[in-house]
Amino acid sequence: MPQLAYVDGRVLPLRDAGVGVEDRGLQFADAIYEVVAVLGGRLLDWPAHLVRLRRNLAALFIDFPMSDAALSAQALRLVAANGHKQALLYIQIGRGAARRDHGFPSDPNASLIMTVRRFDFQQRIAQLQTGVGVITVNDMRWGRVDIKTTGLLANVLAKQDARNAGAFEAWMVAEDGTVREGGSTNAWIVRGGTVFTHPLSRHILPGIARSALLRLAADVQVRVVEEAFDLETARSADEAFLTSTTSPILPVVRIDGVAVGDGKPGPVTARLAGAIWADITAQTGWTAF
Amino acid sequence: MPQLAYVDGRVLPLRDAGVGVEDRGLQFADAIYEVVAVLGGRLLDWPAHLVRLRRNLAALFIDFPMSDAALSAQALRLVAANGHKQALLYIQIGRGAARRDHGFPSDPNASLIMTVRRFDFQQRIAQLQTGVGVITVNDMRWGRVDIKTTGLLANVLAKQDARNAGAFEAWMVAEDGTVREGGSTNAWIVRGGTVFTHPLSRHILPGIARSALLRLAADVQVRVVEEAFDLETARSADEAFLTSTTSPILPVVRIDGVAVGDGKPGPVTARLAGAIWADITAQTGWTAF
Repeated sequence: MPQLAYVDGRVLPLRDAGVGVEDRGLQFADAIYEVVAVLGGRLLDWPAHLVRLRRNLAALFIDFPMSDAALSAQALRLVAANGHKQALLYIQIGRGAARRDHGFPSDPNASLIMTVRRFDFQQRIAQLQTGVGVITVNDMRWGRVDIKTTGLLANVLAKQDARNAGAFEAWMVAEDGTVREGGSTNAWIVRGGTVFTHPLSRHILPGIARSALLRLAADVQVRVVEEAFDLETARSADEAFLTSTTSPILPVVRIDGVAVGDGKPGPVTARLAGAIWADITAQTGWTAF
Repeated sequence: MPQLAYVDGRVLPLRDAGVGVEDRGLQFADAIYEVVAVLGGRLLDWPAHLVRLRRNLAALFIDFPMSDAALSAQALRLVAANGHKQALLYIQIGRGAARRDHGFPSDPNASLIMTVRRFDFQQRIAQLQTGVGVITVNDMRWGRVDIKTTGLLANVLAKQDARNAGAFEAWMVAEDGTVREGGSTNAWIVRGGTVFTHPLSRHILPGIARSALLRLAADVQVRVVEEAFDLETARSADEAFLTSTTSPILPVVRIDGVAVGDGKPGPVTARLAGAIWADITAQTGWTAF
């Protein structure tokens, strides 16, 4: 069965799905997106993704007339048509195509693209035992990374730096030393049993997995504080971890090649991982076992 | 005759020209571009555009095997096929299409898109008499705007702010008050007969029209200094102007609604405009008259 994609009302083979060369997503990164975990055919944390998507559209003044109900129905239809048990649903909404000119088109026509790709969430459970390494890079991104736009080149370069260094992720560090977040994940540390993460601001993405963790931590008696930490503090932390849609939670056991704590996934991270995966199973019925 | 575009070796009607939904230009702004003035069928300052294009590809580690000669030939062929006397050639080169993943694809396949759109350069000559207004906005762009990438959303929002305010351009101002450049133009002021513009750095685009002005100013006995100025200095300048491929030179007569000097295009700007348009005519044979 071919991979199927959705473009502006049509479902078609992924290899035939495209946009015009004057699409503003292509020429200006004038588009927002969401990546949603699909497990057992269900969309994880879908209401939260919808809320964020609408907020991002509003932030960019993109008029997108499709209702939440219609968008949800189209997304579920595409997920079902692709038939994967574990997958990522990618949704991109842009300001449409127009003769190239920076300002908004006088007659905008928002475009919707969706793809579904198989994704191995089981590996993320295996990685709970080993953890991953991160490197650190200067945060070179623009001043509104709280809006989830396709202007991701700084993230691309940071993630490639991480890959070149044999690491999983690159943590973005502000000029004053504050650790903001990773190239596609939120960043967390544990000190003295308390978990710290950067507060919501224009300098981090409000991750859906981040929200889930904040909601679930109390269930396993873990205290979480939304308070920024700097790189020195992270290096001397007891534990560290990251969260994202594609990595619901992963222990960080090395920062710039140096062990965090004893260099092994820690007990607080493990407790949180238990809560997170229990919630994923409760929401979707999917289990890795 | 339909508008024609070029995509990866094919010339086809613009309305049929597209890229796949997993093009990295569309999903990550992982692409660079050039906009070239076409006058009388000739490409203005083409060698300088080629040099910049290659430098940008190198900065992003995009492997683009086509030679300068082949690229030039394809560009000229598309320009000729479209047949406009005054036009803009748009060239975009991206890291190609691949299953979505931030890091570079293991088997990258750079893609080349070119379009040619009619453009009215004559209006720019008319605007020399009236000048234009600019507003100022905080520079929210990323830390490498010297690379001409398609990650232009901050520029889009600034240009739209300008349009909403009835202005032609938005000047991007750093936190410390330094005027960097406009959303799609370089910024200049004149004080005591000397012209000032921001020096090359990671915070401005090295404009081709900017280079042309630096080269031509001596011909008309105008002294130009590449030295940053702040907004207060700009507001009290004798004259101001902007340059770009699409606006070779335009007097700026209002900043945030307040007149610059006497609120009319000034004599130094006029002398430079004479030199710039003479050079354009010399290079292309095109005249507005």
